[in-house]
Amino acid sequence: METRRVYHKRLPSKISEAPPSSTIVVFDKYLVRAVPGFSAWIRRFPFRFGVASGESLKSIGKFEELISEIHARVGEQASPQWTLLAIGGGSVGDFAGFVASVYKRGLKLVHMPTTWLSAIDSSHGGKTGLNFGGSKNQIGTFYPAHTTVLVEQMLAAQPSEQILDAGGELLKIALVDGRPWAKKELLRAGTAEKKSKLMWKLLPSAIDSKMRIVHRDPFEKTGVRQLLNLGHTFGHVIEAALGLSHGRSVLLGLDFAISFSKHKRILNGSRAEKIERWWADNAPAAIERSQFRPIAMKEARSLLLQDKKREGRGLVRFIFVKDFGKCIRLPVSAAEILEYARKTGWIR
Amino acid sequence: METRRVYHKRLPSKISEAPPSSTIVVFDKYLVRAVPGFSAWIRRFPFRFGVASGESLKSIGKFEELISEIHARVGEQASPQWTLLAIGGGSVGDFAGFVASVYKRGLKLVHMPTTWLSAIDSSHGGKTGLNFGGSKNQIGTFYPAHTTVLVEQMLAAQPSEQILDAGGELLKIALVDGRPWAKKELLRAGTAEKKSKLMWKLLPSAIDSKMRIVHRDPFEKTGVRQLLNLGHTFGHVIEAALGLSHGRSVLLGLDFAISFSKHKRILNGSRAEKIERWWADNAPAAIERSQFRPIAMKEARSLLLQDKKREGRGLVRFIFVKDFGKCIRLPVSAAEILEYARKTGWIR
Repeated sequence: METRRVYHKRLPSKISEAPPSSTIVVFDKYLVRAVPGFSAWIRRFPFRFGVASGESLKSIGKFEELISEIHARVGEQASPQWTLLAIGGGSVGDFAGFVASVYKRGLKLVHMPTTWLSAIDSSHGGKTGLNFGGSKNQIGTFYPAHTTVLVEQMLAAQPSEQILDAGGELLKIALVDGRPWAKKELLRAGTAEKKSKLMWKLLPSAIDSKMRIVHRDPFEKTGVRQLLNLGHTFGHVIEAALGLSHGRSVLLGLDFAISFSKHKRILNGSRAEKIERWWADNAPAAIERSQFRPIAMKEARSLLLQDKKREGRGLVRFIFVKDFGKCIRLPVSAAEILEYARKTGWIR
Repeated sequence: METRRVYHKRLPSKISEAPPSSTIVVFDKYLVRAVPGFSAWIRRFPFRFGVASGESLKSIGKFEELISEIHARVGEQASPQWTLLAIGGGSVGDFAGFVASVYKRGLKLVHMPTTWLSAIDSSHGGKTGLNFGGSKNQIGTFYPAHTTVLVEQMLAAQPSEQILDAGGELLKIALVDGRPWAKKELLRAGTAEKKSKLMWKLLPSAIDSKMRIVHRDPFEKTGVRQLLNLGHTFGHVIEAALGLSHGRSVLLGLDFAISFSKHKRILNGSRAEKIERWWADNAPAAIERSQFRPIAMKEARSLLLQDKKREGRGLVRFIFVKDFGKCIRLPVSAAEILEYARKTGWIR
């Protein structure tokens, strides 16, 4: 099933897939304060459930809690023909998407992403998830949305640093899909308002790119979809060790992946020049490595081997860049990654 | 994805889709005592989890409990390439199937049904489910098994009354699909051993019939699949009011549906004669209505209107028989159903 995409400047007066009387709305409570007019707009839906966003939302306990509330309110009337409208960022989308995929054996799911990161990435491609046993997304489904509704007013209401946060995934998708639609103004100089306008313009291309990759491997079986982990293996080490945001860590992880690919001669010749030039043009100055304190070797090793992409026997599946649109996944020893990170100043 | 079907006389020395080192086995603990050799056979699987079957297994609490046990034992190593082998009847299959559909966003599911009812019906067609808020299957997925393994030795080890219990679904499937492959010896005279042999022979035809219906409506969206509720609307009233087994109640519900279809002139002429003859030939004497005490009108009405197939305003979606292979779903007033049930002695 192809997910329909709808773009709106402002909160739409109606969403045709979500008639209020047969729609369960799960929304990030934070939006009531953050987005002008949201509080009045959401009241048109009688069956609305506010949740607190963040990774702690994605638990079996919260799942049971929400299902109980929903079932108590609409259990008797609701049928699989009903809609679940999920309004929020990545955590709300993952969580509410899971609820939609299993309640009454599946409701019609409509996503309304409210962060740039979810608008570009997580609200497309059908992954839902709960965390379990200290690991992310151990429970989940592949359940593509029927419709994704993108509202510029909601996205533009975010704090401006979230544009930088989304930038990592944006550049990653462009690189994996091999289409240089990114614009250097996005992550560099410029006012928040200008960047936000530009992000909105880039959105359709970014989503198209992501979906081209997803369609080649919708259930993550062939390995193609795992190429979207580009930048994430070392990015996760940075995220955990330095406490940076996910988006910024991915930007730094991408920087590492490109330079490691060149070091390993997987990326070379004129392709290397082209990609390094593109990267220098697009990546923000804010990721200059020298700004961050080096990570202790012991900590970095432990974090790297915790990564779920590891292969056992000290091997890690690393995504390398070969060219625009040509990334490859190869097993490489953790020791080699760590040694290169030490050489480039990431690790002391 | 087409589910593969494999038939074995005895517990197979290996199941190619379930290599022991990467298989999570969820099995009905009862089988250890009930099936000779099962206890030794199951030990080849290092990651085995015994559960107590029955509707109470299908809860969020038990789901979380099992996921915790599984995750503690195999969480680190298991990947979506692993298999979950579900060994048991309907409740174990529904429950373990749900676990398989959401753990690590979906494992390879192999069903080994151990009751005739699940071998004919519930292990095919991909429905999984947990009960919630006092209602059945409020949480679940459509997740067809990769393979269903049918083992005569396991099925024949059941108490003989389970053949009668499976008989209702068997005749229902034959009638809905319109293929008269049922054999009158099955539910009438004959030793348990003979019936069991005959049931085993009918199994491939019964499953083919069920799957032909499922394929016309895999996600229960068009209404075709709901024709499989034939006999269930009034059957559920009988089941709840008289405390009979599900299978026997469905037999009685089918009897009611055929006669009500004729009363409403939806079934008539030579088609009525043909179906009534087939029914008289195949249905067991054990469903003679006069054996059961009549149900109080008040109780019957309340049970009928509780049924999830109701349409509101006192209407119920009832499945009528028009011909072999031609059943139709029509809204009919609960009052009319109850009046006919009173006239035929079911209700006092």
